[in-house]
Amino acid sequence: MGRTSDAGEKILAAGRSLFEERGYSALGVAEICRAAGVPKGSFYYFYESKEALALAVVDEHWAEQRREWTRVLSAAGGDTEPLERLRRLFEETEAGLRAGQQGCGTVLGCLFGNLSLEMSNQTEAVRTRLQEIFDAQVEMVDAVVTEARDRGDVTVTDTREAARSVVAQLEGQVMFAKLYNNTGRLSPLWSNCLALLGARAAHSV
Amino acid sequence: MGRTSDAGEKILAAGRSLFEERGYSALGVAEICRAAGVPKGSFYYFYESKEALALAVVDEHWAEQRREWTRVLSAAGGDTEPLERLRRLFEETEAGLRAGQQGCGTVLGCLFGNLSLEMSNQTEAVRTRLQEIFDAQVEMVDAVVTEARDRGDVTVTDTREAARSVVAQLEGQVMFAKLYNNTGRLSPLWSNCLALLGARAAHSV
Repeated sequence: MGRTSDAGEKILAAGRSLFEERGYSALGVAEICRAAGVPKGSFYYFYESKEALALAVVDEHWAEQRREWTRVLSAAGGDTEPLERLRRLFEETEAGLRAGQQGCGTVLGCLFGNLSLEMSNQTEAVRTRLQEIFDAQVEMVDAVVTEARDRGDVTVTDTREAARSVVAQLEGQVMFAKLYNNTGRLSPLWSNCLALLGARAAHSV
Repeated sequence: MGRTSDAGEKILAAGRSLFEERGYSALGVAEICRAAGVPKGSFYYFYESKEALALAVVDEHWAEQRREWTRVLSAAGGDTEPLERLRRLFEETEAGLRAGQQGCGTVLGCLFGNLSLEMSNQTEAVRTRLQEIFDAQVEMVDAVVTEARDRGDVTVTDTREAARSVVAQLEGQVMFAKLYNNTGRLSPLWSNCLALLGARAAHSV
């Protein structure tokens, strides 16, 4: 039992790094098992299909990222100014991508963005899961934008739409950080976020 | 000769729609030939590899899109106001995605963005080509932003960085239009563009 559940975790970990590095379609179950160091037969004991593994990888990655985002974006985390918390979210995203690049030589980008463009037309289960994740991200950003608006820090009126645009800008810049293998591409995120939110001049410096 | 070159075009056309619908890794040469209605043997007469076909598809798509962008963004095209031309670029992008969705039931997104996230870590040839295309897009947007700045329509100082952010916002919103299969996701593009460029109030209405 100990060994068995260990194999399940190894498959999940191998799936996570392989999906991040090479996407979904390029991979076969045999290769994932080889990377995990488990016999191919044991794959189907844990996962019904490669798609089921992809969903498990997405869920695990989101559980982790949601903890991070909650920590950074919540007022209890330290910064009381809502906009400062958003700024920290971009800084930590950039730091995370930089660390990944140092580890494997290339900017891997956002697993959810990667899978959205590769797979959303291919499997409804993955599409739905990714929609839920981005909805949750937008909701978290919206809460902070609403706080900022209530304090008069930003002038935007439709906070939900603004939050969507902030997340879209993040995904677009992460795409370019990946394509150009250059995390410096993320440096305009903060000033763009202020512009998209209609931040008062004091914050634009 | 007539028949032979016809087969080459059929392979290119099939590659184009299959790469747009399903990405790169999910496809095999045999399937592309089946869709093109040509014998598999003839593939290698025209293309050295699937990667060579992908590059040809990318080049053909960009030649077409560049003509469109040049038409829309050039002052000779009709609109003399630079910001109006940018606005038209977003409108035509949305119309194009909507037409595609009506044709095949789903928003296919941006072929260059799709391949950037799926393939830029996999093949340097594709990465380089996509970088050149996005560089060219940014340069075209930059030229219009510079015109707008020289007229005093926008306040942004680093026009290259601003153009990159406008293209990133476009790619991010197109990602969500694809993920949610909803071209309505593109509607904030124009007001976001104005915000990112620091447009004067007259244009923000």
